[in-house]
Parts: sequence; structure tokens; C-alpha cells
Amino acid sequence: MSRLPSISAFDGNTAGWGFLLCTDKSARTGRTGEPFLALTLADATGELAGRLFDNVDRFADQFEAGEFVKVQGRAQVFNGRMQFAVESIRRVMTAADSQDRRDGFREDLLLASAPRPADQMWADLEALIAGIVSVPLRRLLSEMTSAHEAALRVWPAARAVHHAYRGGLLEHVLSMAEAGRMLARHYGADADLVVAGAVLHDIGKLEELDYQATSTTYTRDGNLVGHITLGAVMVDQACRAIPGFPDTLQSHVLHLIASHHGERELGSPVEPLSLEAFILSSVDDLDARVNQIRRAIDVDVSPDEFTRYHARLGRVLWKGDKA
Amino acid sequence: MSRLPSISAFDGNTAGWGFLLCTDKSARTGRTGEPFLALTLADATGELAGRLFDNVDRFADQFEAGEFVKVQGRAQVFNGRMQFAVESIRRVMTAADSQDRRDGFREDLLLASAPRPADQMWADLEALIAGIVSVPLRRLLSEMTSAHEAALRVWPAARAVHHAYRGGLLEHVLSMAEAGRMLARHYGADADLVVAGAVLHDIGKLEELDYQATSTTYTRDGNLVGHITLGAVMVDQACRAIPGFPDTLQSHVLHLIASHHGERELGSPVEPLSLEAFILSSVDDLDARVNQIRRAIDVDVSPDEFTRYHARLGRVLWKGDKA
Amino acid sequence: MSRLPSISAFDGNTAGWGFLLCTDKSARTGRTGEPFLALTLADATGELAGRLFDNVDRFADQFEAGEFVKVQGRAQVFNGRMQFAVESIRRVMTAADSQDRRDGFREDLLLASAPRPADQMWADLEALIAGIVSVPLRRLLSEMTSAHEAALRVWPAARAVHHAYRGGLLEHVLSMAEAGRMLARHYGADADLVVAGAVLHDIGKLEELDYQATSTTYTRDGNLVGHITLGAVMVDQACRAIPGFPDTLQSHVLHLIASHHGERELGSPVEPLSLEAFILSSVDDLDARVNQIRRAIDVDVSPDEFTRYHARLGRVLWKGDKA
Amino acid sequence: MSRLPSISAFDGNTAGWGFLLCTDKSARTGRTGEPFLALTLADATGELAGRLFDNVDRFADQFEAGEFVKVQGRAQVFNGRMQFAVESIRRVMTAADSQDRRDGFREDLLLASAPRPADQMWADLEALIAGIVSVPLRRLLSEMTSAHEAALRVWPAARAVHHAYRGGLLEHVLSMAEAGRMLARHYGADADLVVAGAVLHDIGKLEELDYQATSTTYTRDGNLVGHITLGAVMVDQACRAIPGFPDTLQSHVLHLIASHHGERELGSPVEPLSLEAFILSSVDDLDARVNQIRRAIDVDVSPDEFTRYHARLGRVLWKGDKA
Amino acid sequence: MSRLPSISAFDGNTAGWGFLLCTDKSARTGRTGEPFLALTLADATGELAGRLFDNVDRFADQFEAGEFVKVQGRAQVFNGRMQFAVESIRRVMTAADSQDRRDGFREDLLLASAPRPADQMWADLEALIAGIVSVPLRRLLSEMTSAHEAALRVWPAARAVHHAYRGGLLEHVLSMAEAGRMLARHYGADADLVVAGAVLHDIGKLEELDYQATSTTYTRDGNLVGHITLGAVMVDQACRAIPGFPDTLQSHVLHLIASHHGERELGSPVEPLSLEAFILSSVDDLDARVNQIRRAIDVDVSPDEFTRYHARLGRVLWKGDKA
Amino acid sequence: MSRLPSISAFDGNTAGWGFLLCTDKSARTGRTGEPFLALTLADATGELAGRLFDNVDRFADQFEAGEFVKVQGRAQVFNGRMQFAVESIRRVMTAADSQDRRDGFREDLLLASAPRPADQMWADLEALIAGIVSVPLRRLLSEMTSAHEAALRVWPAARAVHHAYRGGLLEHVLSMAEAGRMLARHYGADADLVVAGAVLHDIGKLEELDYQATSTTYTRDGNLVGHITLGAVMVDQACRAIPGFPDTLQSHVLHLIASHHGERELGSPVEPLSLEAFILSSVDDLDARVNQIRRAIDVDVSPDEFTRYHARLGRVLWKGDKA
Repeated sequence: MSRLPSISAFDGNTAGWGFLLCTDKSARTGRTGEPFLALTLADATGELAGRLFDNVDRFADQFEAGEFVKVQGRAQVFNGRMQFAVESIRRVMTAADSQDRRDGFREDLLLASAPRPADQMWADLEALIAGIVSVPLRRLLSEMTSAHEAALRVWPAARAVHHAYRGGLLEHVLSMAEAGRMLARHYGADADLVVAGAVLHDIGKLEELDYQATSTTYTRDGNLVGHITLGAVMVDQACRAIPGFPDTLQSHVLHLIASHHGERELGSPVEPLSLEAFILSSVDDLDARVNQIRRAIDVDVSPDEFTRYHARLGRVLWKGDKA
Repeated sequence: MSRLPSISAFDGNTAGWGFLLCTDKSARTGRTGEPFLALTLADATGELAGRLFDNVDRFADQFEAGEFVKVQGRAQVFNGRMQFAVESIRRVMTAADSQDRRDGFREDLLLASAPRPADQMWADLEALIAGIVSVPLRRLLSEMTSAHEAALRVWPAARAVHHAYRGGLLEHVLSMAEAGRMLARHYGADADLVVAGAVLHDIGKLEELDYQATSTTYTRDGNLVGHITLGAVMVDQACRAIPGFPDTLQSHVLHLIASHHGERELGSPVEPLSLEAFILSSVDDLDARVNQIRRAIDVDVSPDEFTRYHARLGRVLWKGDKA
Repeated sequence: MSRLPSISAFDGNTAGWGFLLCTDKSARTGRTGEPFLALTLADATGELAGRLFDNVDRFADQFEAGEFVKVQGRAQVFNGRMQFAVESIRRVMTAADSQDRRDGFREDLLLASAPRPADQMWADLEALIAGIVSVPLRRLLSEMTSAHEAALRVWPAARAVHHAYRGGLLEHVLSMAEAGRMLARHYGADADLVVAGAVLHDIGKLEELDYQATSTTYTRDGNLVGHITLGAVMVDQACRAIPGFPDTLQSHVLHLIASHHGERELGSPVEPLSLEAFILSSVDDLDARVNQIRRAIDVDVSPDEFTRYHARLGRVLWKGDKA
Repeated sequence: MSRLPSISAFDGNTAGWGFLLCTDKSARTGRTGEPFLALTLADATGELAGRLFDNVDRFADQFEAGEFVKVQGRAQVFNGRMQFAVESIRRVMTAADSQDRRDGFREDLLLASAPRPADQMWADLEALIAGIVSVPLRRLLSEMTSAHEAALRVWPAARAVHHAYRGGLLEHVLSMAEAGRMLARHYGADADLVVAGAVLHDIGKLEELDYQATSTTYTRDGNLVGHITLGAVMVDQACRAIPGFPDTLQSHVLHLIASHHGERELGSPVEPLSLEAFILSSVDDLDARVNQIRRAIDVDVSPDEFTRYHARLGRVLWKGDKA
Repeated sequence: MSRLPSISAFDGNTAGWGFLLCTDKSARTGRTGEPFLALTLADATGELAGRLFDNVDRFADQFEAGEFVKVQGRAQVFNGRMQFAVESIRRVMTAADSQDRRDGFREDLLLASAPRPADQMWADLEALIAGIVSVPLRRLLSEMTSAHEAALRVWPAARAVHHAYRGGLLEHVLSMAEAGRMLARHYGADADLVVAGAVLHDIGKLEELDYQATSTTYTRDGNLVGHITLGAVMVDQACRAIPGFPDTLQSHVLHLIASHHGERELGSPVEPLSLEAFILSSVDDLDARVNQIRRAIDVDVSPDEFTRYHARLGRVLWKGDKA
Repeated sequence: MSRLPSISAFDGNTAGWGFLLCTDKSARTGRTGEPFLALTLADATGELAGRLFDNVDRFADQFEAGEFVKVQGRAQVFNGRMQFAVESIRRVMTAADSQDRRDGFREDLLLASAPRPADQMWADLEALIAGIVSVPLRRLLSEMTSAHEAALRVWPAARAVHHAYRGGLLEHVLSMAEAGRMLARHYGADADLVVAGAVLHDIGKLEELDYQATSTTYTRDGNLVGHITLGAVMVDQACRAIPGFPDTLQSHVLHLIASHHGERELGSPVEPLSLEAFILSSVDDLDARVNQIRRAIDVDVSPDEFTRYHARLGRVLWKGDKA
């Protein structure tokens, strides 16, 4: 029996066994009364629906949603969508010396994540902060990022819209900081502040979202308070804890966080009033859009020159030379 | 020489002397080259433009903007607007035993303020808080209001839109709390929370606005951060300082503050998600509108049945039986 | 064979017989050519889809959509939604002494309706009207409600959005009147007028909607003219029929009806211009939202702290302590 | 002393005597204390500001706002706007055999009005109605227009926006009816209904506006109820008074009135749902715009190819070959 | 075996053989693993889904999407939608003397198209252009339409919204030209220009859309540049190629094209500034709406008086007497 | 008599003589009948109102609007605005050897212009184009800029909003190109295309605006067609004139021009669909805003920390450390 390829490489003839992540599992009853299991299976390259029709009793207790699984089956196209007909399934044995590991199971192959390794991104972040000229600002960034290192290394930037995968927040922050620094220098703005704004603007997402390897959900405070206010509270506390942190600087950093969505309709309680705040909100918007565009073009496998209609951007996108 | 009436009672024949507040003063040159002083004069009932054409040199140093003044002159209608032609003017002597005080000078007669005395309103606030059933919520309100008593007694609710006078914030808070408590009981919502939301929803205005007896301006943080975020930071700190303050309660209180404008376009970073938050934002909107409507009808002295066009509300208002 | 519980208590193992309302019935052909019946079945607590696959010919003529039925079958979960597999079905015998009645058939158990009995609500309405001080206003309300008593006792407030069940209009009117009266007194507005506005604001819905026990649809005039204009015409006629009804009062009552949606975009041809009209439209909005929020929280049976996304309100709702 | 030309022909050198309408008069005091009169003077071709500085006491009682006056004076350009310096002024003697009449005074020369005489327009309206095929519709139009003939002959279509002059409503109605009939035939719609809609769509303006020869103001019901609802009430009554008036026809006529603004944001409580309603609202919009465009181009006397910015239309207009 | 009727006449009992257009074909696998073909079949009167379950191997190569086919099968209602169960299918032999032609195959019966024949419409277009008084304008229209005759005879006006069928663009242009000419005369505008605007306003659609008998798609330039800019480029070139074409006229024609959507939000980079441009955009909007309304009413076969909710128009439509 | 400073350095005591540009001149009559001249006077640093009351006859013919003038007079503050009371004025003698030149008259000191000299900017532009890798794109840019060099060196980017001074267009283009190139490299987009888009995006402004040293006005085509369509036509022609210019490249360049405002509401007939188009419209928006922000902060001479309300940006701006 052959080994399954990555999900992005599945076609209607794919069959075999492999390791996947089960992100959803529900017991259902077919029209003729027989029970079956409806699953969602994922790896780092994508996800697809799974169905288990035979021997449901035997397999139903062998795994739960949120677990890595070893599956065997074959792909089918049903109503125009890919589906995986599961023949057998059980949870992976994750012990370091398990047979499954010897057979090639690795968590990182099954979790979608930023293209660059967390260690590389973290080194970039440290270099970026080390390059800050302002002493209090450098200290603020250093303390905030140290205090939250574990989460910052893995957090997604969002549940669904952009950079919605492991390490996406850090990828987004670094890209914004680099682009923002260039624009700040170009326009004679304070590059330190734009970099600080990039690093801190979404820090409230650490409290807004609850990220688990296999799911990202909104927390209670995420829904009730939102990442902008949560981030302002976090940074306000951190500033107060630094003796002699200049009042004006604190106000400016809070302004960068509060105004980074650029408009009230987009959730910012105040609009950008400083050159740095304008640059930051412009770069945040552009960076998020570029990520969405790239992703929309990457996942579109049709031979057409344009992607399907992108509901969030409200348009088709041009694939250009890729087509 | 007769004593001037309240400004709201001026007409084109008013003349005499009186005590007023000078809120603006600028030296100008007329078309024919002569210097004159352009003033804004106010009392508790309104304000009007003043002009001093004669003996400018003699009076120019006798007072500054922001001071109480003793003036003599006569009202004129110029281009359809009331104007006061000043004949003499000097600052008031405010010592307790000054002649001006013996002549009837009293600061409170010259400052626009809420209809009820601050002491009465403060007693109502204390009674309101004493009626809160939830122990941590009562403690939070008690500590927040005690810590800010001096400001809360005099702060306006806004620079211009509604309750924009001494004590206006407290008047607005009490009115909202009373109406909100009735609605909470009617709809089976938690009245404690609605009252707490009413008391705390605009607490950030204490940092957003800089209130002086003679002027209200936005602070740096008022412009850069805004009262919603400032208030959330203040309340978050206060909650953390109360041992054992329940997490869920803290989230709900922050939610009430963050969502009280009801919509993102109106500056709330999150929208109401709980019954209490819906009631609070509805009452806040209604209370502010009622204040605007009353004021628009009160200041309209025309014999017409409808007021002039009210730019902020975008309509004329019906004066009904008052006409 | 066991008796079926209320629909809200169904789960995937429910089976047995019971009385339900069939609100939709259509004959279809399955993919393999066999005919089947697709049904919608309802009681006072909810509704669910039904399917009859066997003996279609035998049961097809035993009932029609819009009739009460006696059914037997078992619940299934299909594609994540509950479905009832019908094994036998026939119309209920509704004669007063029928066997079905002896077996417990009661129409009121099968029709969704306001929580309080119509008689109680009607008594409240009469007391409310009796409390109106203005003689012409009291007479207007008394005559309008008497003339439409039969409909007012049973009408829903809407086809779908809020209070969309038997007696919903009266429930909405009474709740608005009570809340409106409190606010009117609080704000020094004319409570008689706010109460009158609450009673009459949706009177045009009696002509806009066609309510049958088993369905609510828009009438021709409902679509072409709308309840605001229809209500204005009805009330205008009623006022003219009362000798000496004051002109200004008539104008104000028509204004309350015409402006109660608060904004043009929401269908009001004029916006509120009086204190009473502002209060009325604020209370109408709040009362409708509270009903939507309660319902959304009631029907959400998930263990999550927040409801699913509510498309009409454009957000999730917090279930708070209920969770 | 020469005779003044029409106001539209005034320039900075115009001087002499003539007959005008005084639409506004207020007594004011100049900066140096002297009293003067500020006036608005008008004829059929336009209006301009007037000032009387000398002999105020002598002329102040010789006329009132709303009266026709005989004036003498000279035009000046002040701050870029034309102004008329009045030297003498008194009310016109309007008796049939007065000297003023012998000197050429005629009311119609002083009142802005539709380009065609009321008699001609009325004859057109009667012909239009006579051409209606539907008997009940013809009767409805005939009765409504007869009942309101006096007002319909002189009413303006609006206070300010379009057709805001004597006879403007009738001009607008006739133009819409003719254009609407052509479009109805072109698109296979019911021409009778479109013509009826044109005649009746603004009938509520007779109650919304109070038209006097010298002023147009909103009535109480105009502000509180609005012409769409007022018109629906009027037409509903008229239909009921015609025995056997078909229900469906009545619904359609009310629909044409209620939906003629085309969108809720523009004040229509319902949107067009029939071919005839779409045509009517399209023609109403076009006819009003054409009137605004023509007027904007007519009054623009600059040598430029484009008019000034037109605030209501939000753009400049191209004068084309006229330039 | 009986002959199939037109698709618009299908009901649940229809069975037989006939000629149709296959516009979509995809191979799928059913839940139980068997392959089947999912098809879309169309004729001039509509389209419906097809399924081929048996002998898939035998028929799969007998036709492709985009070909005319001879099919045999029977209609079924599945989940409330009509479906055609195909028993046999093969491509049509389109040779002039083929047996299929002798059996009645005709392309035009299978392609949705404008109600009037292209030759008639073309003759109307030529007459319309011949009636243009302005020599350069007549030459411009004559040359543009000659150069694009082949496409103009068959092009649809849009991919989906209105006049989305063979000849729809020409039908739309002629209808607009006729209505626009009437309105131009009625309002004293330049009828030549309105007619020219009608003929040329959508000329860019010839480059925006790629029309094949069996499909309409957006071209690369259609997506990237859009028909307004493409049309402006085409007409600008054509004007330059006509010696002595007046500058002002060229500007006006380009203005008519650029402004014909009436508002920026609707895709016009400039808004109408001339009487002719206002008329043209009004007529374009009305003509497109009328076509949508007619179609919505035509395709609605329910017995109800109103159509289903029309998502693009955002409302139901009244079928009136048709019901 | 002292020499006047730059206008930006005027205060209420400024008096003397100097060279200025008269951009507006109109003859008026004061209230008391005396004629006077109302002027607008400007230099490279700003503009102010001028008034000439004495010897009007003597000076009236000595100069016209649009001429450089030698003036003598003194500044006054009138109604809070600076005004210059002119005592004598005549046109400058601009001959190379005139006395005025010897006294220091230089055109460039009187015309607002970009901070860097045109020659420097032009050299940067040439270097930028030389750095383009794509041969056809480099040729297109080279030919377009050569053909329009004279205008491109001096054109403003707008009449009023941003970069509204001599050389402003080139300044804007170069700034955008540099920032756009950086972002393109950062995001892996085609830098050649973003640079080309920056150079060509506003090329239509050369036809939209009529720039004279002393005024910028909209042309007929500027109003009727707009710079986006005009630019597309220009670039389309230029591409066609280059043999072998790739179709796809031409489409992309036209797309960059057509979509550069980013949204339809802002005047772009199509929205960005490629990565390069997203970057270009983002940079265009940011560059224009930065210019507006800088200018607003530069011209605000108050001691406050925030600027006055900026109507176009809809907010105050923070001057930060500048204050």
C-alpha cells in the first residue's frame, strides 16, 4: 500500500496511508439509516473532508477531533469537491520512540505555518529591536517580546483572514517592521516609532485569540474587549513599569496601537494623527492584503488567468504570468 | 445706570453694567486703521460677542481672556446677530470681601452648569452605588468615584455636543443610571451591571478632556488615545487592584465601556454582545439626544413652531406646545 | 410505542408518535427514481424537516400542508441537521370529542406564541389605555383597539425578525408601552403620547401581514404600501371620525407612526422631531433587539460561551452565565 | 430718472426706480451705531439684497416684508455680491385704477413663475386626464384635480430644490406625465398608471407646503408627516369615495405615490416593485435634475465654460455651446 | 419515443429525446464509488442540470461541453430543483445535410437570444444613424458600427445581469437610443448626441467580453481595464481618424461614455455634467432595470402575486395582472 | 522704507515694499459708496488678501491679475485674518536688465514650487527609467517622458489637494517610484512595473489641468473625461506606437493607471487586481497624505500641540515635538 502525498498534491486517484491531523469529527446517520463518521483531515498544505462508512463501531473510539491520526483510504470527487473515503483510522502514538515516529510521523509536517522557521524569525526580531535608537522604546520592546516569547513564536495573526497559521503573527510583524522602516526613512518619519508600532500593534491578539496547534478561537476577552483595547492595556502597563518612560512617547505608542486599523469603521477608536501612525496603518493594510492575494493565487489551481471571486476582497485577482 | 439682565434675556435695547466671564479676547484693526477689541462674553445662560471701539488703550490691559469682568455697554443687533458694544471693562476683584462681591459678583452665576447642585448629584451617586448588590462591583464603583470625586463633581460630558457644561458628566451619568436601571429590570437584565456601565462608561473623559472653569479642551491623550481606551485602561487597573475581582465580571465591565457607542463607525472598537451592553448603549444615545433636543428648543427664541435646522441632528425640531 | 417529546427536546435517538403541525409538504423523486415526501413539521417549541420514503402512495392523500397531523417515526441526524423519518402520518380529527383530542391533541401546544396568554395581555392593554389622561387620545386608542381586537390578540409583530409568533405584536406593544412610559416620565415627556405611539405604531401590520395559524405572509398592500403608510391611513381615518379631535394631536400621532423607524434608511419617510418621537423610536429599536437577543441565546444549544454568528445583528452574542 | 430693468439684467451701474417685491425686511444697527434697514428685493427674474441707510425713520413704516414696493436707488457690488442701495421706498398702491398700475405695476412681473401660463398648463392637464382610458382612474384624477384646482394652478414643486416657483408643481407634473407616457409605451407598461402617478405623486405637497405669493414654507404636517404620507392619505380617501374603485388599482396608485422617491434613503417607505413604479421614479428624478441643471446654467453669468460648483448636485455643470 | 419540448415547458413528467446544448460536463464519483456525469443542458428558453448514471464509459467520449447534443432521458424533481436523467447522449452532426438537421436540429433554437432577429435590429440601427443630423457624428457612428458589425449583431450586453443573451447588446442599444431620443426632444437636449451616446456607450464591451455561442466570459482587458476605459480608447482613436472631427464634440462623446454609469460608485470615473449625459445615464439605468424586471417576472412560474426575492434588485417584484 | 519679508514671515506689524504675484484683482464698492480694489497677493511661501482704498483711479490700470507686482503697504489683522493694506502698486518690469531685476525681482521667489530644483528631479527621473530592466517598458517610459518633458518639469500634481505647486507632479512621481520600488522588492513584486506605474499613473493630469505660472485650472477634457481615462488613452497610443510591445504588458500598464485610486468611489473604474496594482495604489494614497500632513503642520503657526481641524482629512493632526 502506497504512502499518501501532501494534501495539496491529492487528485481523484490518490489512495494509500499516511499521517494527518483530524480537526473535526462528527457521528451522523445516512438517509438509509446507517451511521457514518464525517471528518475534517489536514496537513501543513491544506485540508479536506473525510467520510468513514464501514466498520464505524470499530473505528469510532480510536481517535478524537484535535488528534493526529494514521489513516488509510482513497480520494474521490463528490459534487465537485474532493473527499477522502477512510478505510481505517486510529490516533498516532506520539511517544518519542514510537513506531509511528519511526514511520515518519512529524507534527510540523501536519501544521500549516509561516514559510520561515520560528528561530530565524525570532533572531530577526531581536536584531530589529537591537537597532532601535530610543532607549526607553528599545527597553519596552525588549521586555514585551521577552515576556511573551513563547506565544509570539507560534501565534497566528488571525483566525481566518490573513497570516492565519502557526507563526503568522511574527511573520506579519517582521514584514511590517521592515517595510515600515523603509517608508519612515523615505518620508522623514521616526523609524523607531514605526518599528515599535509594527511590533506592538497586534500584541493584544495574544489575549484575543486562543491558539492551539489544531485550532484558533476567540477568547472571551477577544470577543468582549477586542485586541486593540487589550493591547493598549498591556502596553500601558508595560510603560508604567519602566521608570522614567516619557509621557509623550507612551501616548504616541498607545496612539499607534489604537489607530492602526486606520478608520473607525474598521475598528480603530481613533484615527491616525501623526505621520508615523499614517505610515503604520498603511503598511498594516498593505501587508495583510499582500498575504491574502498571494494565498488566493497560490490556492487557485484552475488553468484560468484570474482566480475565482475573492469574497473578502470583493474581486477576482490576476494570476498574470503564473497562469 | 441699570444692571444688565442674564444674557438669555438680552434684546436689542439692553444697556447697563454687570459681571460676565470673558472667554475670548483679541486685538484687531478695523478697515479704517483704528484698533478695536473683539471679545466673547458669557454667563450661565449663554454667551455673546462683544466689541470695544473707544479707549482701547485704556482698557486693553485691564483684563484677559479667562477672567471674570465688570462691563458696561449696550446691546446691538448687527447683521442679524446680537453684539455687545462695550464702553468700559475691567477684571473682577474676586477677594471674599471685595466691593465686587458686595455688588453681587458670584462665579456660579457666570458659569453654565447642570441644573442640580453638585452636592445633590453626588449624594444621588452615592445612593446609587450603595444600592448595588454585587460586592465587587460596588467596591469598584466606590473606589473609582472616590478617587476621582473632585473631577467628577465638575466635569462636563463633552466639549460641545451634549451636557457640555459644569457638572454635565455627572448629570448624564445619573440620568443614564436611573433610566438604565428601569430598563434592565423591565427586560430581566442585570441592573447592577447597567448601573455600573452608566457610572464608568465615560470615566475616560476625565483624561480625554481638560476642564477649566472657563474652557474645555482635548488633552494630548484625549486626541491620541480617546476616552474609550483611556477608560478601559483606568478600569482595568482598578479591577486588578481589587483582590478576587471575578474575571468574567471584569470582562463584562470592560465590554460595557468598549461597546457603549454601539457601532464601530461611532468609535466603539467592539459592538454590544450582551443584553446589558445593548441597554447601556441605547440609553447613552437617548440621554445625549434628549439633552441636545432640550437645549435646541430652549435656545430657539423665534416665534416659529419648529427650531432652526440642527446641523448635528440633521433636522429641525418641533417645539410643540411651547410655540 | 412512546409519545414524542416537544421538538426542542428531540435528539438523535428520539422515536415514537405525536401530534404536530405540517407547515410544508412537497412530493419529490429521489436520485434512484423513487418518489418521497419532503415535509416541514412544527410545534410551539420549534420546527424540523421530515421525510417519508415508504408507502408514499398510501399516506400522500392523508394530509395537506397547513394541517395538524398525527405522525409516527424516528429522528436522525443528516448532514449535521436533525431530520424526522416519518413512518406513518394522517391529519388530526379536530372535532371537540374526537379520539385525537382524547389522546391529548391541543392546537395551542403546536403553535408558537407569546409567553403570556392573550387574555392577560389584553387586560393589560385595557388598563394601559384606561390610564391615558388625554380624553381624545384615550378614545382614539379605545376605538382602534376595539375595532381590531380579534386580530390584535393573535397577530405576530413580524414575519421573521422579532416577536414572529402568535401574540407577538401585542407582547411587543405592551413591553414598549411600559418601557416608553417610564422613559417619558424620566425625561419629562408626554407619557400619554408615548403610550399611544407604542399602541399604534405597528397598527398597519394588521394590513401588511396576513396571519394564519400556520403561516404569516405579506399582503399585496403590505408589499406595495407598507405598514407605516397603511397605519397612518388607518389612524388618520379614526381621528377624523372622532368629533373635535385636536389637529395638533392628530399631527403628533401621525408623526409618531411615520417616524418610528428612526431613520429614512430604515423605512421612515420622516425622522423623529419631537421628544416623544425620539423616545418611541429608541424603545421600538431596543425592544425588537432584546427579543432577537433572547431568542438567539435561547435557541443556541451549543456548550460555547458565545452564540453562532447572528446574521441580522451582524455579530455573535454572549450567553454569559448561561454557558 | 430712468426705469430699473429686470433684476437679472442688473449690473454695477444700474440706477433708477421700479416696482419690486420686498420678501424680507429687518431693522439693524451699524457698527457706528446708526440704524439701517436690510431688505431682500425680488422680481420674476431673481432677487438681491437691499440696504437703506438714509432717512430710515421716514421710510421704515412705508412698507412691510411681503408687500410690493416702489423703490429708487442704485446697484453696488459689495464683497463680490450685488447690493441695491435704496434711496426711497414705499408700498405699491394695488387698486385696479391706481397710478402705480398706470405706471406699469403688474404682480405677475414680480413673481417668479413657470414659463408657461397657468391656463395653458391647466388645459394640458385636462387633456391629459381626458386621455386616460381607465374609467375609475380618469374619475379619480378628475376629482382630485378639480378639488384642488386653485392650489394646483399656483403651487411650487418645492421650497428650494427644483421648480421652486409659482406654477412649478404643475409644470413638473405635466412634464413628467408626457415623458412618462412615452416611456410607458416604449416599454409596454400601463401608460394610464404612469400618467396617474405623475399627476398624483406630489399631491401631498399641497398639504406639506404653505405657498403664499411671496413665500413658501413647510406646514406643521409637512414637517411631521411629509408629503408622501399626506398624499397617500388624500388619495386613499378619494379612492374610497368612488364606488367600485378596484382594490388592485387603489393599491397600485398608493404604491406609485409611496415609492416615487425610488429609495428608502430618499424618503420612500417602499421601493418600486412594478414596471410603472420604476418608470415613474426614474422620470421624477430626471425631471427634477433637468430643472436644476437648466437653472444652474441659466443663472451662471460667468464667461467660463463650466458653472460654479453646484452643492446639491455635487459637481460643476458644462454649459457647452452656451459659453 | 416522444420529442422533448422546450426547456421552459418541462415538468416532472417530461420524457423523450431532443437536441440541446451541453454547456458544462464533469466526471464525478458517487458516494458508493460509482462514476457518473454531471451536465448542464440548455436551449433558447432556459437551462437545467443533467445526470448520467448508467453506461458512463459508453457515452463519456461521445460529446464535450460546448457542443450541441442529441439526448434521451426523463425529467425528475430532486430537492425541489428540476433535473434531467440522461439515458443516452451524443454530439449532433452539424453538416448541412445531416440526418440530425433533417430531424429538426437548428442552432438558433438552442441559443438564448434577443426577441427580434439580428437583421431587423441592424436595419433599425442603420436607420437610426442615418437620422443623425451632425455630419461628423453620423460618420463616427457609421464607421464604428461598420467596423464592428459582426460582433455587434450577436454580442450580449452583459455576462449575467441584463440582456445577457445573443443580440442583447444591440437590443439594449436600440431601446436606449429610441427612449433617449424621445427624452432629448422632450427636454430640449441634443438628440444626435443622446443617440450617439446610446450607440457607443457600451462599445467597450466588445473588448471586455469574449462571447462564444455557448459562453460569455471576461477577457483579460475586460477585467484589468474595463469597458468604459476600453470604449473611450476605441472612440478616441476613431475620432482622431476622422479629419476635422470637432474637438468639443469629441470631448462630449468621450464624456457620454465615461459618465454613463452615473456615479463613481457604479464605475464611472466622471459624473454626468451635461444635459445629454444626465439623460443617457438615466435611460441606461432604466433600460437595464426594465430588462431585469421583465425577466424576473417571466421566469417566475409560481402562482404567487409577487416574484421571489430578487437579490440584485434587493426586493420582490409585483407580477400584477399576470398573477 | 524697509523691504517686505516673505509672506510666511508677515505679522501684524509688517510694513514696507516688495515684489509679489497678484493672482486675483477685482474692483468693488464699499458700503459708503467709495470704490476699492480687492486683491490676492502671493509669493513662494504663501498668499494673503490685499485691499487698496486710496487713489484707486491712479493704480487701477497699473497691473492685472496674473502679473508680478511691486507693492508698498502694511499688514493688518482684520476679523482675525491677515490683510495687506496697499498704498501703491504697479506691474514689475521683467526685462532682463530692468531696475526691478536689479532690485532683486526673481520669478522663482514668487512661485510656490517643489523643494528640489527641476533639473535635479529630472536627472532622478532619467536615472530611474535607466534602471528599468524590461526593454519595452523602459522605452515606453523614455518616450512618454521625453515627449512631455516641458510640462512634466513644472506641472503641479493637483489644483488644490496635495503637491499643488510648480513641480509637484514630478516630486510626487519620484517619491512614489522610490517608495514603490522598495515595497515591490520587499514583497517580491515586479519593481519595473511599480516604477512604470508611478511614472505614468498621473500622466493624464497633463491634459486634465491647465497650469500657468500663476494659476491651475481644469481643462474641458479634465472635467468631462478625467485624468484616468485621458492617461489611459495617452499610454494606449504610446504602446501601440512601439513595435512588438507585449499585449500583456500593455494591459498591465493600463490596469495600473485605471486602478490607481484603489476604489470605485474614489474614481477608479476598476479596482487593483495584481500585486503591483495594490502596491501602487497604496503608495499613491500614502504619498498624497504625507504631503497633506506635512503641509498642514507646516502652515499651522499656533502654539497648540495639534493643528486646526483639517477638513479634507477630517481630523486634527499631531504636531508632536514640533510644538
